[in-house]
Amino acid sequence: MTIGFVGLGLIGGSMAIDLRRRGFADSFLGVEKDPVNAAAAVKIGLVDEAVELDELIDRSDIIVISVPVGAAVQILPQILDVFQQKGYKDKTVIDVCSTKAQIVRGVHYHPMRKRYVATHPMSGTEYCGPWAAMPNLFDGRACIFANTEESDPKAVATIEKLYACLNMRPTYMNADNHDVHTAYISHLSHVTSFALALTVLDKERDEKHIFDLASGGFSSTARLAKSNPEMWVPIFMQNRDNLLQVIDTYISKMQQFREAIDDYDSEKVYDLIADANRIKKIIR
Amino acid sequence: MTIGFVGLGLIGGSMAIDLRRRGFADSFLGVEKDPVNAAAAVKIGLVDEAVELDELIDRSDIIVISVPVGAAVQILPQILDVFQQKGYKDKTVIDVCSTKAQIVRGVHYHPMRKRYVATHPMSGTEYCGPWAAMPNLFDGRACIFANTEESDPKAVATIEKLYACLNMRPTYMNADNHDVHTAYISHLSHVTSFALALTVLDKERDEKHIFDLASGGFSSTARLAKSNPEMWVPIFMQNRDNLLQVIDTYISKMQQFREAIDDYDSEKVYDLIADANRIKKIIR
Repeated sequence: MTIGFVGLGLIGGSMAIDLRRRGFADSFLGVEKDPVNAAAAVKIGLVDEAVELDELIDRSDIIVISVPVGAAVQILPQILDVFQQKGYKDKTVIDVCSTKAQIVRGVHYHPMRKRYVATHPMSGTEYCGPWAAMPNLFDGRACIFANTEESDPKAVATIEKLYACLNMRPTYMNADNHDVHTAYISHLSHVTSFALALTVLDKERDEKHIFDLASGGFSSTARLAKSNPEMWVPIFMQNRDNLLQVIDTYISKMQQFREAIDDYDSEKVYDLIADANRIKKIIR
Repeated sequence: MTIGFVGLGLIGGSMAIDLRRRGFADSFLGVEKDPVNAAAAVKIGLVDEAVELDELIDRSDIIVISVPVGAAVQILPQILDVFQQKGYKDKTVIDVCSTKAQIVRGVHYHPMRKRYVATHPMSGTEYCGPWAAMPNLFDGRACIFANTEESDPKAVATIEKLYACLNMRPTYMNADNHDVHTAYISHLSHVTSFALALTVLDKERDEKHIFDLASGGFSSTARLAKSNPEMWVPIFMQNRDNLLQVIDTYISKMQQFREAIDDYDSEKVYDLIADANRIKKIIR
């Protein structure tokens, strides 16, 4: 089995590491437009060869699109076009992007739609590039499969095996629900981290002081603010409507705190915190 | 040397663990109003005995006030009163609270003020109680000493040794500056985490789904939302003015993101994220 990765960054690279050492495939190819990243990915051993897109499509059984979602929505139909032109009926293409509605909508009427499986492995770090790839990144996390009814059941089964090899728990939902859920559970966290970093950086011109005083709590809350704009701008743009709604709810919660603190209303602040504490039951 | 802890929770308990195994003191006492926590602290071995406050003052060379700051501002002058009444000239009392302005103001004119050293070891976790105490909690972190010019230099030197034994880096500033800095670097992070948890909990009635989808990013950003209201309500109340200002700046940053996303202004979103990325240089 040969797997081809379009995009050799954190996600594609980390998938390649575990799929290779766990024996899911024996040949790994990559397309990577940045020449430094391409050379590094080969040198690190994430893939055996960096090739052009056409060659990758010809030689791969499974093609994984692991580039930012703005590029992914353009590459996916190109790959399905090649499937059609060359009569490739057994190859499967997947994407691993953080928004799903626009990418599935873009190929909804494509004659080769059934060869595409929309997925979102819910894992990552704040780092990017092939050097950020790491083993075990996906172990125990959820992988969302979106709109599987539009895909060939055999293609879905193949991709289920791929994610089972990455030790992921499959979850099935439609693309629109996915985008609502991820707005809450992932995209909002990134906006709040970016805003937190900007607030502190603005104030504390003396950066030494921040470094000195930053305790584990701040580092944890601001960690996602290290995330790459290349990846996050298209996510925010594609999930604009859901995200705006979530941001509004969030700002209103911040304002509830603000008012209660302003009023010295310690009972109200206590209730808000105790209510927020319910998250204990949910996150480790 | 005997050390007495008023309050046997995460901070007092964690200090006791390291001060004992590193040989700073050989006898450890505790005052703890919750009988379950008191019994647990003795059973775990954080302290040798749980006693009443008067006995703890009589028998301890150093007294560490490690209760929420609302209680600490009341207990500190009581302890200094006992120092005066009984003529204790060599005992030292410290607090470890997260706000400093009000507690130092409260004893500014106390005749025994010089026997008090105001400190804030900048470390912690989102857990509380004696069972949350852990070794090495303070290693490598900053410890703020506030208004040391109001303390006896020998008392300060003793406490510097205590924190050196905890492997902390001392930082000196006045109490008002401390409260401004911690509003940015610590208190705001807590408010943003609480608000994030409330937003997600509000929306996602089906808690199973949150658990399923919550990736490392969300857990990291919402971790502080597990924090105890008993501790955080008095901090927010005592640091109200600084915190309100910081919250306002933060909400305006959130609104900048909101507007840029609303306008599909990907260049502006890119710039905001790239600007926030400067935090990379500051936090590990």
